[in-house]
Amino acid sequence: MSEVVDTGRSAEMGLVREVTFDRVRAAAQRLAGVAHRTPVLTSATVDRCLGAEVFFKGECFQRVGAFKFRGAYNALSALDAGARTRGVLTYSSGNHAQAVALASRLLGIPAVIVMPSDAPAVKLAATRGYLAGTPGEVVIYNRAETTREELGAQLASERGLTVIPPYDHPDVIAGQGTCAMELFEQAGELDALYVCVGGGGLLSGCATTAKAMRPSCAVIGAEPAMADDAARSFATRSLHSVRDPATIADGARTPSLGRYTFSVVLERVDRFVTVSEGEIAKAAVFVMERMKAVVEPSGALGVAALFQDAARDPEALRGRRVGVVLSGGNLDLAMMPELRRLAEG
Amino acid sequence: MSEVVDTGRSAEMGLVREVTFDRVRAAAQRLAGVAHRTPVLTSATVDRCLGAEVFFKGECFQRVGAFKFRGAYNALSALDAGARTRGVLTYSSGNHAQAVALASRLLGIPAVIVMPSDAPAVKLAATRGYLAGTPGEVVIYNRAETTREELGAQLASERGLTVIPPYDHPDVIAGQGTCAMELFEQAGELDALYVCVGGGGLLSGCATTAKAMRPSCAVIGAEPAMADDAARSFATRSLHSVRDPATIADGARTPSLGRYTFSVVLERVDRFVTVSEGEIAKAAVFVMERMKAVVEPSGALGVAALFQDAARDPEALRGRRVGVVLSGGNLDLAMMPELRRLAEG
Repeated sequence: MSEVVDTGRSAEMGLVREVTFDRVRAAAQRLAGVAHRTPVLTSATVDRCLGAEVFFKGECFQRVGAFKFRGAYNALSALDAGARTRGVLTYSSGNHAQAVALASRLLGIPAVIVMPSDAPAVKLAATRGYLAGTPGEVVIYNRAETTREELGAQLASERGLTVIPPYDHPDVIAGQGTCAMELFEQAGELDALYVCVGGGGLLSGCATTAKAMRPSCAVIGAEPAMADDAARSFATRSLHSVRDPATIADGARTPSLGRYTFSVVLERVDRFVTVSEGEIAKAAVFVMERMKAVVEPSGALGVAALFQDAARDPEALRGRRVGVVLSGGNLDLAMMPELRRLAEG
Repeated sequence: MSEVVDTGRSAEMGLVREVTFDRVRAAAQRLAGVAHRTPVLTSATVDRCLGAEVFFKGECFQRVGAFKFRGAYNALSALDAGARTRGVLTYSSGNHAQAVALASRLLGIPAVIVMPSDAPAVKLAATRGYLAGTPGEVVIYNRAETTREELGAQLASERGLTVIPPYDHPDVIAGQGTCAMELFEQAGELDALYVCVGGGGLLSGCATTAKAMRPSCAVIGAEPAMADDAARSFATRSLHSVRDPATIADGARTPSLGRYTFSVVLERVDRFVTVSEGEIAKAAVFVMERMKAVVEPSGALGVAALFQDAARDPEALRGRRVGVVLSGGNLDLAMMPELRRLAEG
């Protein structure tokens, strides 16, 4: 079950000044030729139904299957020589772990990835695969005995490792912002951009890019209703947290925005849309059936939000040019029957 | 069960002269701005495992979800004014039916699509969806009472309709050839190109393009071992037919090559690879899990053939630049559990 709490924290607005479009541009230079310039998909069916022109940015085709590679690689390449030699540590068990693992291999930086002993075998295998032949390692911990933060902090301090957090870091955010930069280059002018939100790294980065490159483009955060901490935090300007939300969009199960992402979201995002589990599943199945892109549930949040907006006010989108980020494609195909049931139910 | 027969027919080699690269170029002009210029995907994992550079042409992202749109649209736009007014007819129940339906709507040409009463409801609905708001119609027939050829010929003759066959037509073949043309433009030089084969339209078109644009590029046909009529026909230079092969690659269940495609294949294809049902399923699951593109089993035939070649002789591919066409993505997601079982079995 989930529990919503107001953490009582307000945004430290000074932090927003560290997340600049210049940093996004620097990230784009570091990522050139390393990250995939992912394709933009269009659907005549979607355009006809909505009376709009919609551009889907296929980050599911990014390296490691998600936008996370952009931020991880950018943050690692921004390290100085000493930090590179000592190495990095992260403790995500999701796409960020694989992104740091691959970036560390490409850059020759040793990486420690802290993962729980009950992590899915496929994710463990994929992360180890990326680390194969590098000095990096996966460190397994038992949830009953310690927390990943404790173990991570202890290892980082003992070995002098730099912690690369999954979202709350200016260089991670700047890396994710290159996704919107490419989309604007590929699709031209946009009136609105739908971006999913978990910890807010992708949303903050894309909003930073949008407000610099296309100030008139509305930036819309898309979040599961079951994990609506960011939407609440935005509405109340006070940081909310949702503990262990049971949403199928596992990328959005992060408890709350971070210090950087909260302040960026408050200043640069226009509004939020929250979507039901059924809407998420329907959107994911639609993208797979009609657009032939494999998306994980979190990856379809933006599509679900767009469809909800279109259903609520069909006129609002008519004639508009709209961008949507398909943020990731790391779907366990064994989940397909469940996803289809949820979409039809 | 399948039954292989030597039809006793040899190729009419004069026909090959009607399938020219000039015709492919003309098709490319007609398709510009109408067909999607589909993205080319790459996989660092595949490249590392094979020691090669592999470029996957994503025709699953084509309109109607398969390369078939290219040939259908080209053939319809090549008709003269009189034929356009009278209309067209086709009797495919697969991707070609949807391709003709969509092309007919875009060009304002009335279309009759003959489909069996037991066609999958989704395909029927999709075809009717494309015809909605046009004077075109789906004509349902009962397999027990008549054949689609009989009914089709009768309707075409009564109404003066032009029959647009699914593959055995120079303009259909030329349209499919634009797929390889784009791939060469996008990926540069290639040493080998893997293309799936059913009736041979895509393979003939791509081979025609390859031999004109990149004469040194080997063109390899990829076919299910259970439906190896084209491979046998190529090997013996005598047309073979496989009746009702039970392969999961439903796009390759066509009984034999056609008159045009047989003669083009003999002259312009270098060799064939036949793959097992397990290899097809493994390749399809690989493309979906690792490359995040939804492919139907037929769409993964080229990948399965590439992987078989790599397993047989790892050195042969080292340092090579290789193209593979992912020909279509119209997978019924309900098939996923079966596909995964077959891939693991």
